[in-house]
Amino acid sequence: MDFSAIVHEPKSVMSYAYDSNTLHIRLKTARNDVKKVELLAIDPFNWIPRDDGSMVYDLDKNSVFRIRMKKEQQTRDYDCWFAEIDDIEWKRIKYCFVVEDENDKYIIGCRDRILYTENEAVLYDLFNYFNYPYINEEDLYQPPTWVENTIWYQIFPDRFCNGSPNDDRKVLPWGSDPMDGAGKKFGGNLKGIIEKLDYIKEMGFNGIYLNPIFESPSSHKYDTADYLKVDSDFGDNDTLGELVKEAHKRGIKVMLDAVFNHCGFLHPFWQDVLKHGKESKYYDCFYIIDEEKPLVYGIVENGIPKDAPREHLNYRTFAFSQSMPKWNTSNPLVREYLIKVGCYWIENYDIDGWRLDVSNEVSHDFWRDFRKAVKSIKPEVYILGENWDNSYPWLQGDQFDAVMNYGFQLPVCNFFKRNSKQGTQYNTQDFQFAIGKLLTDYPRHVTRNLFNLLESHDTRRFLNVVDGNTKLAKLAYILLFTYPGSPCLYYGSEIGMNGDEHSNRQCMIWNTNNQDLEFQKFVKQLIHLRKLHESFRTDQIRWLKEGNNQKTLFYKKETQKEILYVAINNENKSNTLVSPDEMKEIKVIDCMCQQEISIDGMIELPSYGFFVYLIDKKQKE
Amino acid sequence: MDFSAIVHEPKSVMSYAYDSNTLHIRLKTARNDVKKVELLAIDPFNWIPRDDGSMVYDLDKNSVFRIRMKKEQQTRDYDCWFAEIDDIEWKRIKYCFVVEDENDKYIIGCRDRILYTENEAVLYDLFNYFNYPYINEEDLYQPPTWVENTIWYQIFPDRFCNGSPNDDRKVLPWGSDPMDGAGKKFGGNLKGIIEKLDYIKEMGFNGIYLNPIFESPSSHKYDTADYLKVDSDFGDNDTLGELVKEAHKRGIKVMLDAVFNHCGFLHPFWQDVLKHGKESKYYDCFYIIDEEKPLVYGIVENGIPKDAPREHLNYRTFAFSQSMPKWNTSNPLVREYLIKVGCYWIENYDIDGWRLDVSNEVSHDFWRDFRKAVKSIKPEVYILGENWDNSYPWLQGDQFDAVMNYGFQLPVCNFFKRNSKQGTQYNTQDFQFAIGKLLTDYPRHVTRNLFNLLESHDTRRFLNVVDGNTKLAKLAYILLFTYPGSPCLYYGSEIGMNGDEHSNRQCMIWNTNNQDLEFQKFVKQLIHLRKLHESFRTDQIRWLKEGNNQKTLFYKKETQKEILYVAINNENKSNTLVSPDEMKEIKVIDCMCQQEISIDGMIELPSYGFFVYLIDKKQKE
Repeated sequence: MDFSAIVHEPKSVMSYAYDSNTLHIRLKTARNDVKKVELLAIDPFNWIPRDDGSMVYDLDKNSVFRIRMKKEQQTRDYDCWFAEIDDIEWKRIKYCFVVEDENDKYIIGCRDRILYTENEAVLYDLFNYFNYPYINEEDLYQPPTWVENTIWYQIFPDRFCNGSPNDDRKVLPWGSDPMDGAGKKFGGNLKGIIEKLDYIKEMGFNGIYLNPIFESPSSHKYDTADYLKVDSDFGDNDTLGELVKEAHKRGIKVMLDAVFNHCGFLHPFWQDVLKHGKESKYYDCFYIIDEEKPLVYGIVENGIPKDAPREHLNYRTFAFSQSMPKWNTSNPLVREYLIKVGCYWIENYDIDGWRLDVSNEVSHDFWRDFRKAVKSIKPEVYILGENWDNSYPWLQGDQFDAVMNYGFQLPVCNFFKRNSKQGTQYNTQDFQFAIGKLLTDYPRHVTRNLFNLLESHDTRRFLNVVDGNTKLAKLAYILLFTYPGSPCLYYGSEIGMNGDEHSNRQCMIWNTNNQDLEFQKFVKQLIHLRKLHESFRTDQIRWLKEGNNQKTLFYKKETQKEILYVAINNENKSNTLVSPDEMKEIKVIDCMCQQEISIDGMIELPSYGFFVYLIDKKQKE
Repeated sequence: MDFSAIVHEPKSVMSYAYDSNTLHIRLKTARNDVKKVELLAIDPFNWIPRDDGSMVYDLDKNSVFRIRMKKEQQTRDYDCWFAEIDDIEWKRIKYCFVVEDENDKYIIGCRDRILYTENEAVLYDLFNYFNYPYINEEDLYQPPTWVENTIWYQIFPDRFCNGSPNDDRKVLPWGSDPMDGAGKKFGGNLKGIIEKLDYIKEMGFNGIYLNPIFESPSSHKYDTADYLKVDSDFGDNDTLGELVKEAHKRGIKVMLDAVFNHCGFLHPFWQDVLKHGKESKYYDCFYIIDEEKPLVYGIVENGIPKDAPREHLNYRTFAFSQSMPKWNTSNPLVREYLIKVGCYWIENYDIDGWRLDVSNEVSHDFWRDFRKAVKSIKPEVYILGENWDNSYPWLQGDQFDAVMNYGFQLPVCNFFKRNSKQGTQYNTQDFQFAIGKLLTDYPRHVTRNLFNLLESHDTRRFLNVVDGNTKLAKLAYILLFTYPGSPCLYYGSEIGMNGDEHSNRQCMIWNTNNQDLEFQKFVKQLIHLRKLHESFRTDQIRWLKEGNNQKTLFYKKETQKEILYVAINNENKSNTLVSPDEMKEIKVIDCMCQQEISIDGMIELPSYGFFVYLIDKKQKE
């Protein structure tokens, strides 16, 4: 047995409270090393007096849980075993593992591993048991209830729709430039978004996420000048109020972008510091490095400096950008101000979520206060961090509800990409291993609330990943829509817009002649199906045998009501799959064409083909 | 290479901020599997523009850290590698590992492992790098500065000293009963402690930790009736004020016991609930299970119920004890009240620390608020949790400064114990492995502030562990006093008091005829040496070859100024150690007799013998 690979840690993603009386326990063992794992669990105060007055643990059947753990997922390096302990009446439990391979059987505890014995003094030696001391309700991870069922549409406001094309704003002609993300303005605005809400609803989206809309000189508006004012490029505060109202009428949630890591150069606090130096009451709202040196270095254009060589940077910033001074969130002025902003738009404009820009560079301490403040106003608000890496430290109930799931995007891109220079090309197994890791990197309810994306304003569009091949894009979208978590589409991708990382913020194409309507119909159908079927949304994924090639995914997702079977052939030749036995002699629905089919034996999967089959379990009863 | 055993996790005990510009990075690999590990680290925004406008990472020597990791400790299952990255100018870093065994060399990143290559696109692919996104000062672990240098004396107040033997309290004759920890009272009080402060100071202790002193019916006082009043058994609030003042005069810190998990049955909030039921404004301050059923079950004596069979327990409690209702710390009334208590004794009586009873069963959320409140009054107050298990989730800067280090006590007992029924008997290697795990279970500065103990009011006395053999107890005390962290002695153990877990709260023996004065002198000397030498306190421990038996510990502790060598022979026969080369031709001090000795070659260690040798590094210069 590879003991070095056996990993468990209490109060971690391997041992977390799922609700107020349920714990989830995971154990990692080397891949294919162990054949059986049992979990032994017992109340830590479960003692009863012996006749001689000494205490002994009550080992009555009713007080000891003995649960066979299931192999939850497999990664390249380990198997992850899973068990749920429910109905923990007294909210606390101690536990150990009994691990068996072909030759041996061991008790694995927090201190020692011991060859298995039925000797109760050893088997139930609680000093060697892991401890989950108490499930306290206020520490639970409790996301909004609506997110699992939400399908997001991300809008980059300057490029989506100009709702007032005849006003006197100076903008470039719509679609006149491939756009490199810099400061050019095309006139998209909130009024335009309001106009298109029917389109958004018609597609099936029930959440919109807007890139920043507050006053700022740039088109991307990540350099905020006034957090309490919608930029006049996009309308005014009332327009936002109307947008939220109209969206809510249509059952659509609205999430805004909170840029709280840094402000823009023109923000009045920073301008005050530039003017008054150490005398400014905002001086400590930022991180000045050398009081003696000039604050800003180099060329200033339109009141905003160019980036300086970093040896001249005299205050902390986002990246090395002189135009984005980093907020000192330990300063009470800053904290109060930003939290006020966070609450203001909820209280006065009833928004439903905050996407937190560069959230991983802001202190945990700040986010804890932020969460309490905004949740006290609207408990069902969604708090979404822009963390690109594994984010469990932010997802334990005290900070975020979710993060942008770039951890999902990466393996999907590695699996589907064509002719790319960067990173590894994944085959079926690589992909399954990566997803196995991702699924076990988070608690199950966290996974179901993550914000899943294949693309954003910060990446190339997915169609670009697959060299413009919509057949491949469809396969990836099937994956996205049958994966647990809340999927997001970047505006325009539903009509086949393409673009690399330098041209990913194009003007939306509204001329239907230039839209890929077939692709759009496909996306719409997926949205519809995902809303309809809980099996699309569940986090229970089992991989099935992928047949004869190394580029097919075949998986099963089961809930109490349904079983979903998805197959995706990411190769330019057909593949033959063996249908699972339970598919035989039962009514199977082909979801994409809503037809009943019968399956028996082999299923032929064409080149770049797929299927999405559903079994309604009620028919068995 | 055993890839399954390679473990790293950012923002964990393997990747933590040591101070505002230093990170500590650890990597686990299977024991003896890997021969070399390098850490590659780089600023995540370290890009510079290429001629064609695309961005490339600046791989200038000055921007890439390449650090050889040291094998920090070894456990039964893994080697732990360590590196410090200091001077992280921009507070953020991405990193990966280059791991080498006899045959291969791999890049280990957050997503993939890749056969080593000098190809920069692969070697510096930051998408595969682990991320420490930002060191924010307000998230740092910042313990009080005085704790590392403190030696604690734990006092169980009823049993230490009766300073007013002639008053009219009804108490049992001093020392008349071996004591089983139940409700008997012997008259020890705060006045008695004040009287003995000179003794405590003379011994060298500079911190006292008192078991609970607030109003409560029992002698242990873990069932608080009034948190704002010193129990009349022990004096009054003014007596505490005097005690703190007198202690501070002598350079002694005072830590009290905060029982915030539960209150006593007589607490007015609970009594109000008993009286008014659902109508009580304190009803939600507790966790009532079934509103319809009677609250209390069974026999009530002197206003306090006996323990009921748990199926009749109708509210949450400590363990299954009806007399200790658990506080609902999510209730604002409770939170405000307990935090007020936490602040009251600091503000008005200037205490220096809180030891938090059953701290692991109280919510993290409560402790975060508690920390902020008490630290805002006195930043240097010590917050010590009574967690028995691995406690990293509480020790990340936002909750506790330390926990009672039972994780240290257990391997020490397992190594030294004689004729015990319970648990494993450790040999040298077992012990080293357990300590190796303990040292790598926490950040280094956390380790240096833990509260180390071999015994407490909740365990048998250490002398009992070694069957009353003071020779063995001395060996364990040498270990305790040369171990990083803040050591604590339980009152009376310095004079050789013994007692099992049922008789561990005896009256202090003050008659010097009945004290083990030789043992007391030994302890005093260790206290003195620990204060004098930073090498006693450092967390840098290296194990040296233990000679010919499996019960000897030989280790080295090095600081900038000193090298300490400690040998401990836990066996009834002598052992021969090979002296390290650096001991030759240099002045070595035998700490215990303050004599200069010269060492060359072999060192003879008698049965149950030890030595503590010191090299002053200045002499080399």
